[in-house]
Amino acid sequence: MNITLAQAEKAIATAKEKAKAIDAKMNITVVDAGANLVAFGRMDGAWLGSLDISIKKAKTARYFDMNTGIVGELSQPGGSLYNIEHSNGGLITFPGGVPIKNTKGEIIGAIGVSGSSVDNDHTVAEAGSKAI
Amino acid sequence: MNITLAQAEKAIATAKEKAKAIDAKMNITVVDAGANLVAFGRMDGAWLGSLDISIKKAKTARYFDMNTGIVGELSQPGGSLYNIEHSNGGLITFPGGVPIKNTKGEIIGAIGVSGSSVDNDHTVAEAGSKAI
Amino acid sequence: MNITLAQAEKAIATAKEKAKAIDAKMNITVVDAGANLVAFGRMDGAWLGSLDISIKKAKTARYFDMNTGIVGELSQPGGSLYNIEHSNGGLITFPGGVPIKNTKGEIIGAIGVSGSSVDNDHTVAEAGSKAI
Amino acid sequence: MNITLAQAEKAIATAKEKAKAIDAKMNITVVDAGANLVAFGRMDGAWLGSLDISIKKAKTARYFDMNTGIVGELSQPGGSLYNIEHSNGGLITFPGGVPIKNTKGEIIGAIGVSGSSVDNDHTVAEAGSKAI
Repeated sequence: MNITLAQAEKAIATAKEKAKAIDAKMNITVVDAGANLVAFGRMDGAWLGSLDISIKKAKTARYFDMNTGIVGELSQPGGSLYNIEHSNGGLITFPGGVPIKNTKGEIIGAIGVSGSSVDNDHTVAEAGSKAI
Repeated sequence: MNITLAQAEKAIATAKEKAKAIDAKMNITVVDAGANLVAFGRMDGAWLGSLDISIKKAKTARYFDMNTGIVGELSQPGGSLYNIEHSNGGLITFPGGVPIKNTKGEIIGAIGVSGSSVDNDHTVAEAGSKAI
Repeated sequence: MNITLAQAEKAIATAKEKAKAIDAKMNITVVDAGANLVAFGRMDGAWLGSLDISIKKAKTARYFDMNTGIVGELSQPGGSLYNIEHSNGGLITFPGGVPIKNTKGEIIGAIGVSGSSVDNDHTVAEAGSKAI
Repeated sequence: MNITLAQAEKAIATAKEKAKAIDAKMNITVVDAGANLVAFGRMDGAWLGSLDISIKKAKTARYFDMNTGIVGELSQPGGSLYNIEHSNGGLITFPGGVPIKNTKGEIIGAIGVSGSSVDNDHTVAEAGSKAI
């Protein structure tokens, strides 16, 4: 019920290929069902500050079993989850974090990507999550 | 590819002169390409709370290789990077952090200034960054 | 002067092979010259608590440009560096962290391994560091 | 009753000269009477992990108005201050932190030095503290 290192490495390899295809330099994190780091890679020249953001996106996606951008829609001023980012040692709630499911549809981990526009980050995370 | 202490001290000296010229009391931080502290100076009478802000501005500018104010425009409610400040142990995303480049245009560090209005903070940081 | 992702992945792949050869399950971290994460892998079934230890070992090895076990010899009660572990957000000073050098002998990063005995951890880290 | 930036810079300049004279690369921190950073400099090639240690040594020296090594003698297993290092966000209690006094003998701040043997660290800190 938990992502393996081989699966996580496959997700990162696929995400890296997608990143290169759209000319972006990404930090890519994969966490397991326990929201703990399984694999990570920072592409050469990727923003240093995106390292922590990619980790937080992956954790946020698994913490709530949804894409991070959905959490971010609810965490705006006046929203039902306003400032939820203060929990869990810091969440990142804009797009780029996506749950990873096995063939049965069970969530076995999550991927977080950061280093470009949030649209690009999400595109690359989506590609990585679908590699499993 | 990394700023030297002599360069960092020159940036701080230039920033201090600019601060005096506009009658402001500043905290001034210079970090290297790895976002680690190289030099720091707090002018007599400068706000104590600006100490940490100047450090976080310098780090933020290097984390994303851009002026901190640009990040702040995107991190507003409804913006694509809303609440990015929760990453990396706390970012500061209003003006006053500026990357430092060598003569080849490569980023070798960053400077962060805090102690006055954000316009003044940016002006002083800009002066410091151009001393290299 | 900084390790690349390709080099970091090669170090992790070599370390994993060595770990399998000695029947150990390891967490393996590679940091760059700025002590920032470049790549990470947790082998299936590896201790969860060793995740953070492998990161701290890699950082400690780069923070002081030496094998972590050497720091640990000096940080014992009565030693010259007693309780140095309280710095830098927490150091790990027993064996398993090793600097990584390029062919010119310059330090370009470090590797940290945790998941078995400290002797095994060091053996695997050493193997990974020599892959570059 | 508080150290000025000019005094702190003089202490750092003197400490740097002493460090060069004994062929050491140091991180040097000066804090004020409130234990807050006034000035900092990291010499080119100095250990990255000594950055935080130099800051903690300066703070520790001012927190208790004594050389850090004296605290360290009392913090050993069985000692009266055993594991005092857990307080204040982390103390460093081996030599290299020294209070700074004005001409009246009043403590106006402290200096912390890290980057070599603890004997060398203390020698350089002592030189810096006497520059005032």
